[in-house]
Amino acid sequence: MFDAASTRPVLGIDPGLSRCGYGVVRRDGHRLVPVAYGVLRTPTDLGLAERLAMLQSDLDELFDEVRPAALAVERILFQVNARTAISVGQASGLALAAAARRGIPVTHYSPNEVKLAVTGYGAAEKAQVQEMVARLCNLDAPPSPPDAADALALAIRHLWAAPVKRRAADADADTDGAGGSGFERAVAAALAREEGGR
Amino acid sequence: MFDAASTRPVLGIDPGLSRCGYGVVRRDGHRLVPVAYGVLRTPTDLGLAERLAMLQSDLDELFDEVRPAALAVERILFQVNARTAISVGQASGLALAAAARRGIPVTHYSPNEVKLAVTGYGAAEKAQVQEMVARLCNLDAPPSPPDAADALALAIRHLWAAPVKRRAADADADTDGAGGSGFERAVAAALAREEGGR
Repeated sequence: MFDAASTRPVLGIDPGLSRCGYGVVRRDGHRLVPVAYGVLRTPTDLGLAERLAMLQSDLDELFDEVRPAALAVERILFQVNARTAISVGQASGLALAAAARRGIPVTHYSPNEVKLAVTGYGAAEKAQVQEMVARLCNLDAPPSPPDAADALALAIRHLWAAPVKRRAADADADTDGAGGSGFERAVAAALAREEGGR
Repeated sequence: MFDAASTRPVLGIDPGLSRCGYGVVRRDGHRLVPVAYGVLRTPTDLGLAERLAMLQSDLDELFDEVRPAALAVERILFQVNARTAISVGQASGLALAAAARRGIPVTHYSPNEVKLAVTGYGAAEKAQVQEMVARLCNLDAPPSPPDAADALALAIRHLWAAPVKRRAADADADTDGAGGSGFERAVAAALAREEGGR
């Protein structure tokens, strides 16, 4: 049903210097399996350069442990203020370079694309995103801190891309069967589990 | 006259993704010696992540060859637009991390501090800065491209910091002699050379 590559984990990163969220998700058949998630932190009492070196070393470790098939990163919006943009730029630059050095393809997704993929609604609230991430990954509670949930959502958005392409190919071949995409089935299954558990 | 550390080269970096200027300057007695300067470029037809990985690898090589005593970087102003800030942030983050991983101290200088140090005038034009960099480093012509001149100016600004501190200490001890700081003598000597050459 899915190509072999789609079962390798995808790493989502929500870049930041104080808190850099990461979420690793792989697809097992129709299920989304959260492999790891959390936040890389750097102490605010260290100098900027030392903090960046520490983040770089933590990111290198993460990439070497996870060996992701792809990196999904949030597209930084140009509406943010310049101070935030510099800091997020510094953190994201380290993540992007770490991926490229390892030959790992990088895809950027806007916050709205991620929300749409995870909740079906591009203007969803943060809490809704966190709740849907928990459902889709079959977690008991929304992942904490929120930066980790955002990173998981990025990985889910990336895993969602493959079925969309496949569905388009199926439509061309006029072989689209019932049941929709793997992602849709994952959503349906997660919601059914959730309903059953209540 | 100067401590041993001050004769080790200082690396100035004017961060950017398309053009990252670097300038290496050391002090030899009262003279400023330009050890190396130039621009690290990344091809615009490559992806962002690949370009960052390439810049990172070039910076690593530069640090390992130059073995600077200190890194001087331009303080990014928050007035710039967010798009520029992200890009400069990504490039500067790589430079700062490269320095910190090697235990090299980093100092940020505002554009005005650099102009003031090099030309004596905080609102100097770019061309004036480039000309004074050439004079102070005893170069036949202003270094090109301008990013390299800006990086040399950052290194000069950093080398200038030590005599300023020393002068303050001298004043305390009431031993301030004629002739001013080493930097002032370097400026005077450079100007004298320039006058003599005309």
